[in-house]
Amino acid sequence: MNFKEKWQSQIAQIVSPSNLPTDPSPFLLDQRKRYTSENCLVVQPDSVEKIQNLVRFCAEHRLPIVPQGGNTGLVGGSLANGAIVLNMSKLNRIREINLADNSLTADAGCILQDIQAAAQQANRFFPLSLASEGSCQIGGNIACNAGGLNVLRYGTMRDLVIGLEVVLPNGEIVSHLQPLHKNTTAYELKHLFIGSEGTLGIITGATLKLFAPPQAQATAWVGVNDIQAAVQLLSQMKNHFAERLCSFELISEFALKLSAQYSNLAQPVQAAWHVLIELTDSLPRDDLGDVLAQYLYENGYENSVLAQSEQTRRDFWALRENISASQRVLGANIKHDIAVPIAKVADFVADCERDLWQHYPQIQLVVFGHLGDGSLHYNTFFPEVLNNDVYQFEDAVNAIVYENVLKNQGTIAAEHGIGSLKRHWLPRVRSADEIALMWAIKRQLDPHHLFNPNKLLPEN
Amino acid sequence: MNFKEKWQSQIAQIVSPSNLPTDPSPFLLDQRKRYTSENCLVVQPDSVEKIQNLVRFCAEHRLPIVPQGGNTGLVGGSLANGAIVLNMSKLNRIREINLADNSLTADAGCILQDIQAAAQQANRFFPLSLASEGSCQIGGNIACNAGGLNVLRYGTMRDLVIGLEVVLPNGEIVSHLQPLHKNTTAYELKHLFIGSEGTLGIITGATLKLFAPPQAQATAWVGVNDIQAAVQLLSQMKNHFAERLCSFELISEFALKLSAQYSNLAQPVQAAWHVLIELTDSLPRDDLGDVLAQYLYENGYENSVLAQSEQTRRDFWALRENISASQRVLGANIKHDIAVPIAKVADFVADCERDLWQHYPQIQLVVFGHLGDGSLHYNTFFPEVLNNDVYQFEDAVNAIVYENVLKNQGTIAAEHGIGSLKRHWLPRVRSADEIALMWAIKRQLDPHHLFNPNKLLPEN
Repeated sequence: MNFKEKWQSQIAQIVSPSNLPTDPSPFLLDQRKRYTSENCLVVQPDSVEKIQNLVRFCAEHRLPIVPQGGNTGLVGGSLANGAIVLNMSKLNRIREINLADNSLTADAGCILQDIQAAAQQANRFFPLSLASEGSCQIGGNIACNAGGLNVLRYGTMRDLVIGLEVVLPNGEIVSHLQPLHKNTTAYELKHLFIGSEGTLGIITGATLKLFAPPQAQATAWVGVNDIQAAVQLLSQMKNHFAERLCSFELISEFALKLSAQYSNLAQPVQAAWHVLIELTDSLPRDDLGDVLAQYLYENGYENSVLAQSEQTRRDFWALRENISASQRVLGANIKHDIAVPIAKVADFVADCERDLWQHYPQIQLVVFGHLGDGSLHYNTFFPEVLNNDVYQFEDAVNAIVYENVLKNQGTIAAEHGIGSLKRHWLPRVRSADEIALMWAIKRQLDPHHLFNPNKLLPEN
Repeated sequence: MNFKEKWQSQIAQIVSPSNLPTDPSPFLLDQRKRYTSENCLVVQPDSVEKIQNLVRFCAEHRLPIVPQGGNTGLVGGSLANGAIVLNMSKLNRIREINLADNSLTADAGCILQDIQAAAQQANRFFPLSLASEGSCQIGGNIACNAGGLNVLRYGTMRDLVIGLEVVLPNGEIVSHLQPLHKNTTAYELKHLFIGSEGTLGIITGATLKLFAPPQAQATAWVGVNDIQAAVQLLSQMKNHFAERLCSFELISEFALKLSAQYSNLAQPVQAAWHVLIELTDSLPRDDLGDVLAQYLYENGYENSVLAQSEQTRRDFWALRENISASQRVLGANIKHDIAVPIAKVADFVADCERDLWQHYPQIQLVVFGHLGDGSLHYNTFFPEVLNNDVYQFEDAVNAIVYENVLKNQGTIAAEHGIGSLKRHWLPRVRSADEIALMWAIKRQLDPHHLFNPNKLLPEN
């Protein structure tokens, strides 16, 4: 009798039979069709209390629990084997919006786009924005410390969380959903749960920061000859436009060509490298586009196009956001989600390209990302191996890329998390003392190692 | 033979005899003259390596170490007894400024004002600003997660730290001083050290965020009839001016009278409650003052004065910043550093005043603080007990204040830390599971409990 058969009826009683999906298959395969969960029981509890009861039952019987949000992750973070897959989709209420404190409290299973919409309806703005916002969930965004397109101005998910409600592995709740803007009462545990990928607790609710909605926007596409010219423009613009500079995306010519073809859109300009820039202002002003165009012209960035209509703006963003999808159509690829200091991006790209081509002359590089944060989606593929066989090269390609990341003071994980894909790389970026402390934290909260086992932390 | 006599010569060899101050007395008494350290050896190492050697020696011989920055704390956080007082003043170099990444790396002993000045010299802005900025040190600011006057726009110290260099209790270093704007590699330990008040490690260096310098500024003093009117104005202005709203300070009439007399300045307006508002813009504009004045007028806040000159602006800020000093001149007082949701500030003030006056009809309340963050310095004094004898009432007064804080979903420590003053209150705001986790973290890093013992965490 396998895990699922053994526990199904008891678990159904705890979470209610209607909260076991009739077709669990969508929850047992990741979006890249790379990771398959085996021998698992998928549950979708519709209350925090049911989650507590489930967790207590699992603690008593030593059953592993793997939490899952929108299942949009890229690092095998909700992969499971002989475990409860705790899908959060049914815990999806907006609990409260507080206008005096500019805060929104929501269940963890709320879809990011629904939170953006709820904020907008209250004449506020929730800035987290990423390609999967129509299906990813806020709990998953928090558990992975998601980034996305507006980090330059508003920070990552971590910066947008005021407080959390978390069910611990012992079934107890830690709840800090009051909209407190300052609270320094010993060690800040909130930041341990953010980015912990379900290994320390189940995030069931969150109080988030809201902002004044942008009242003006200007978007431009700029072609540059090399990355250093893009870095130079970024540095100047950060000091000139300050917080008005909301997005600053870098795209290689090759990445753009793939996306333009997939999107059936024309390239805005011809250049070796492309930059997509967006300014926003929270006070209304009609001239922001003119100001941006003039600034680019006066500073010698003449190979550029201002989006003169909302449609053009959307096309620019589609070119940026469809890069991953256009690559997925081509076939399997080896992804990297890295960051280096902005001052080192050009060096990193040159170093890494040289080393990869030396080892793999046939490799193709799809380089794009959030230059404003020093973060690149450094994707690679082999034109002759476009199925999952390519993953046989993954560790070797990773090794070359990460060596250059470390040489340039960078990190192997910027905004996608560690999951099961990168845990063996963690000792390259965290010291033995740090990993020992992480394990001490894990052991204290989850002594039987039941919460998302074999993820995030390297073997102890 | 006392502690100091016993260890002085060996410690002098480790840190060099010139790094033992000839007159240690300033480092053994806090600025409120409330806490005296006894039987301690003060050292001022001038390198990270000497700190490591000292820490290793102390680990071997089980000697407690109490780190100390500018000694401006208010909660007895660097109080010691039979310990090494590790004063950081000699570790005070600005190590690097990186303009592409808008970052500054500094030794922990740098005075806050010197960091502000170094940023300004590089045409950048470091926003942390508080009354003691001429003597507090950045390491202390980080260890206590300092707040201050610009939190509304730029966040607390926690939000301004990119990475830390920390000497652990075993003498090893954890160093993440690369200016990485995104880095999600398992549990974020940086945020454990921020706010840990020296109990987990000695912060020796930090990489900080810099910003574009403000190019325009407008400052106004507004009188209102009650706190709710101030909250209403704050809420409107946050949505209208967004990040331009940099400071929003609340001051009671009584607090203002004390400060005006001490500062030899006139009150800008007469009212029950006062608000000091500052807008800044990172693009130059001449009309920001007019915009602010017009906004206040059009929204019915006519009992207000715009600072028409830099001198008037400084006077307004002196009135705000001298409140604590004017109270110190009066004598000893019982302070609270609390925060509640902004929506609850008016209720908290009304509830607390009622309860305090019921128990202590003679008590005087000096209420002021950062309304923009929901944080109040809720100070109290007894006109007939103006010496340290007043502390006999401290626990009872605290109990009344904190009960009302908790009733209004608030916190007992917003920006001054816990130190030795509030550790017995911690179980009121953190659950047993949370405190157990904190102790597990402490034990893992500092098994012999040598780093700032008997601070922050309640008895285990």
